[in-house]
Amino acid sequence: MTKLLPKLQVALDHSTVQEAIGAAVSVGQEVDIIEAGTVCLLQVGSSLVGVLRELFPDKLIVADTKCADAGGTVAKNNAKQGADWMTCICCATIPTMIAAREAIETIQGDRGEIQVELYGDWTFEQAQDWLNAGISQVIYHQSRDALLAGQTWGQQDLEKVERLIDMGFRVSVTGGLKVETLSLFKNLDVFAFIAGRGITEAEEPVQAARDFKAEINRIWGE
Amino acid sequence: MTKLLPKLQVALDHSTVQEAIGAAVSVGQEVDIIEAGTVCLLQVGSSLVGVLRELFPDKLIVADTKCADAGGTVAKNNAKQGADWMTCICCATIPTMIAAREAIETIQGDRGEIQVELYGDWTFEQAQDWLNAGISQVIYHQSRDALLAGQTWGQQDLEKVERLIDMGFRVSVTGGLKVETLSLFKNLDVFAFIAGRGITEAEEPVQAARDFKAEINRIWGE
Repeated sequence: MTKLLPKLQVALDHSTVQEAIGAAVSVGQEVDIIEAGTVCLLQVGSSLVGVLRELFPDKLIVADTKCADAGGTVAKNNAKQGADWMTCICCATIPTMIAAREAIETIQGDRGEIQVELYGDWTFEQAQDWLNAGISQVIYHQSRDALLAGQTWGQQDLEKVERLIDMGFRVSVTGGLKVETLSLFKNLDVFAFIAGRGITEAEEPVQAARDFKAEINRIWGE
Repeated sequence: MTKLLPKLQVALDHSTVQEAIGAAVSVGQEVDIIEAGTVCLLQVGSSLVGVLRELFPDKLIVADTKCADAGGTVAKNNAKQGADWMTCICCATIPTMIAAREAIETIQGDRGEIQVELYGDWTFEQAQDWLNAGISQVIYHQSRDALLAGQTWGQQDLEKVERLIDMGFRVSVTGGLKVETLSLFKNLDVFAFIAGRGITEAEEPVQAARDFKAEINRIWGE
């Protein structure tokens, strides 16, 4: 059986639409998934998703809303702009997640999915509730602020990622990822690696994206 | 000792800037605090906060970002638009909350504050961590989607609100509030009642805001 190659996702976490679109145009063709980041969505609104949809009709587009409530409305607003996937924060209630899933599926069909973003003290019992609610993607996060405060990827993180995969989730990972970090995950069927500044703020963003891709191919290829 | 009268906050939870500003102009002068709601911020961006600041220089303005990460950046972006307060979601990490608090205090001084929004399975141990991190406001929430799924305010909610107040928090409450609901809280020093559609979608929004105010005065006045 052939392993699935992990996908590469670029997060556009800029505070202006000019920077976000500039970065998207620069590296969008090099990646599999393009994410309208939370910082940027809160700053410029969901029209960013619409621009990405227009520029990249063949890529997967994620609206990283980290939705905590009013899931149906937020999902409808972003799906109408062309988002394939949308994120909910893990402490959202199950009814919020279901409302979001139903809204995005109504507009995007099978292509529409909700991803749960893991922050803070979630439990595997909650994770099972998400699966039961028809949500099969989670994003395992090292918080940007936690990374700044000196916390890094460890064995405990890897074990949690593995357990989520074993439960049946497609698991994306993110937070301070560098090309050299990827080999930490070599024994895991990670669904997607999400990099923001690691690509967009690199000296040569296109080369940075290609380096991530090459490392993914080296580790998970064949 | 005179009890503090609970404040009245209107949440602008519209999906277009036209509707949000329309509602703000209609009822803004009747309330103490005007909230740029999450749905609207994700849809139109933080310029909504800037418009509210311009229209209501003397009111408290809240950016309900439900920030989960990159607290410093999101707080800076919204404080620059004039937000006095900004919300963080309860499952954000402590470094995120501190980064947000420091950023909003840097721009707004003593006026700048972070409020923690309570969703899902938070604990009182975490609440103590927020206090220790210099955060003294929380928002106790009945999720809109949970309300739609039939859950309502109960004794358990009131006991949690009381315990948070006893810990030293200023506690705002929200979620399906109606004028008739306020008396449920009559034995509690609630900091603010937050209503969205209960005011903005009422047949006569100004009268609805005044009815809330009158009921607050009736219960907590004197």
